[in-house]
Amino acid sequence: MRIVLDVMGGDRPPGDLVHGGVHAARRHGLQLLLAGAPDVIREALEACAASEDAAITILPASQVVTMDERPVRAVRTKRNASLVVALEAIRDGKADAFVSPGNTGAIVAGALFTLGRLPSIPRPGLAAILPSTGGREFTVIDVGATVDCTPEHLLHFALMGATHAQAVLGIDDPSVALLSNGTERGKGNRTVTRATDLLERAPFRFVGNVEAHHLLTDRPADVVVSDGFAGNILLKAIEGGVMATTTLLRSAIARQLRCKIGAALMRPAFDTLRRALGYQQRGGAPLLGVRGTVVIAHGRSDATAIAGAIDMARRAVNGRVIERLGAGLDGWCVDGC
Amino acid sequence: MRIVLDVMGGDRPPGDLVHGGVHAARRHGLQLLLAGAPDVIREALEACAASEDAAITILPASQVVTMDERPVRAVRTKRNASLVVALEAIRDGKADAFVSPGNTGAIVAGALFTLGRLPSIPRPGLAAILPSTGGREFTVIDVGATVDCTPEHLLHFALMGATHAQAVLGIDDPSVALLSNGTERGKGNRTVTRATDLLERAPFRFVGNVEAHHLLTDRPADVVVSDGFAGNILLKAIEGGVMATTTLLRSAIARQLRCKIGAALMRPAFDTLRRALGYQQRGGAPLLGVRGTVVIAHGRSDATAIAGAIDMARRAVNGRVIERLGAGLDGWCVDGC
Repeated sequence: MRIVLDVMGGDRPPGDLVHGGVHAARRHGLQLLLAGAPDVIREALEACAASEDAAITILPASQVVTMDERPVRAVRTKRNASLVVALEAIRDGKADAFVSPGNTGAIVAGALFTLGRLPSIPRPGLAAILPSTGGREFTVIDVGATVDCTPEHLLHFALMGATHAQAVLGIDDPSVALLSNGTERGKGNRTVTRATDLLERAPFRFVGNVEAHHLLTDRPADVVVSDGFAGNILLKAIEGGVMATTTLLRSAIARQLRCKIGAALMRPAFDTLRRALGYQQRGGAPLLGVRGTVVIAHGRSDATAIAGAIDMARRAVNGRVIERLGAGLDGWCVDGC
Repeated sequence: MRIVLDVMGGDRPPGDLVHGGVHAARRHGLQLLLAGAPDVIREALEACAASEDAAITILPASQVVTMDERPVRAVRTKRNASLVVALEAIRDGKADAFVSPGNTGAIVAGALFTLGRLPSIPRPGLAAILPSTGGREFTVIDVGATVDCTPEHLLHFALMGATHAQAVLGIDDPSVALLSNGTERGKGNRTVTRATDLLERAPFRFVGNVEAHHLLTDRPADVVVSDGFAGNILLKAIEGGVMATTTLLRSAIARQLRCKIGAALMRPAFDTLRRALGYQQRGGAPLLGVRGTVVIAHGRSDATAIAGAIDMARRAVNGRVIERLGAGLDGWCVDGC
């Protein structure tokens, strides 16, 4: 399997990303294509005692799309950007999956322009794989690819999220829920209430509405469906709640000696917390609905996070997600598609 | 000042709410009207060594709107529900402010039917007062009163949130931001991007878009504006992130003796955390845009939380929020209102 990794557009230096890529490639016997500035990549390879060989090749790219660039403009004008070059490698059959910690909007725009959409999926959905306190992951789709949604888009997200859960996460009969502001049927904005009718008639186990506060502790569904605007806010607000808690705890600990000693004793518990909630462990977010396997990693991804995202891409290719989505959605589509 | 408290519709027993009400009334020298079943209230008063007197009276109500009832139907059919009776007391000038930990949708619907809207405010906004890690609170409006919004509604929320921040929170020149999925201008769904134009021309300090993950740690604005759907998800997802962190930590602590000892030493730090993030400390959420002072407390409110919500109502009456909103919005309104 050939994975192309964009090592240029993340928040961390390319060296960290190369390191994570090399680690994942060796572990799983993958072929790795590193998209970016050849000099920078060669230096990074040296630093982790690797070099270009049969398993590791460089895909030269002279430009970078940065985090603050306007997505559509960036992918249209920077034709030699690492993310564009990498997506073209997927389109041209030179690689099986693309992984990037870059500008999410630009990856979505680039994937749509370069790879195109799957039949009968007008809008892509970005699926985040979230942890729960009980240990079992679940999916939230969409977390930011499509911010203005119709009820039909939510149905498509549900179908894609359920397919991904079956093919990649190994959940036989995934339950699907709608993110809303209340659990009662009929609660929600216009799009959500209309989507309820569609989801109730769809060929998967629809379990109704779920609210944001108990997703991580109760894990009420395998797949949680949302428009990309609310889903993005959900994801970031959960992160914000976790960050606020740890920030407050850290500063409270620093103020008293007895708390410092207590915290030192509690280190194993803090390590457990970090492992359970850290984005590094979660791999990346698969972008579903485009003609190719694309996994978007967190912008702050370090080597561990990149290795996790590559593993997610590997599992998506092995699970034949794109083929299943392409073949399966026509049969699954209900009135209103 | 006369505060009417609905003691029936919360998650906790009426006794807890009566207790919080009596405590707040004594502390601030308020007159307290307790809306609910007289027998239940009398028993609760006895339990906290209080009784009906010049400062504490009972507003008899034979029905209760429960948490899972459909709001509009409930307030239309249960004409003798505690929340309806309480709102009528406000309308008829028998009380100055209404506090309830009941069904949010029913309180919003009841307030609209019974009190009516303020001039030039077509939709009410529920303002949550959130803590930040630095200690200073900020406002998010709307967190669930109006789930389908136009850009103009977001402008009204901004105007109301800024007025409340000035009048009640004591912030002279409040900064106002739009909740979005990115900080760059132009990021957001259709409603948010259109609202940007309106907010840029409005008579307050608009500071652009903010994202959900850094609200509590960076406190980027005094007032954060959102539609009620995304705002509700924001609020609950932050709560979910905090809950997941503390749940994981608690179970990790329970697994090892050294962590248990560490946690015991760290108690002051955990107390700080609870004080900083616990909803009990935050008072209630003012419902802005209706003709009367209405504060919605958390459904799980205990005596402390109810006392905080009553204090929020007291400060709103003292700050003349309703009068300022009624008088001020015409002058503030810009094109598109």
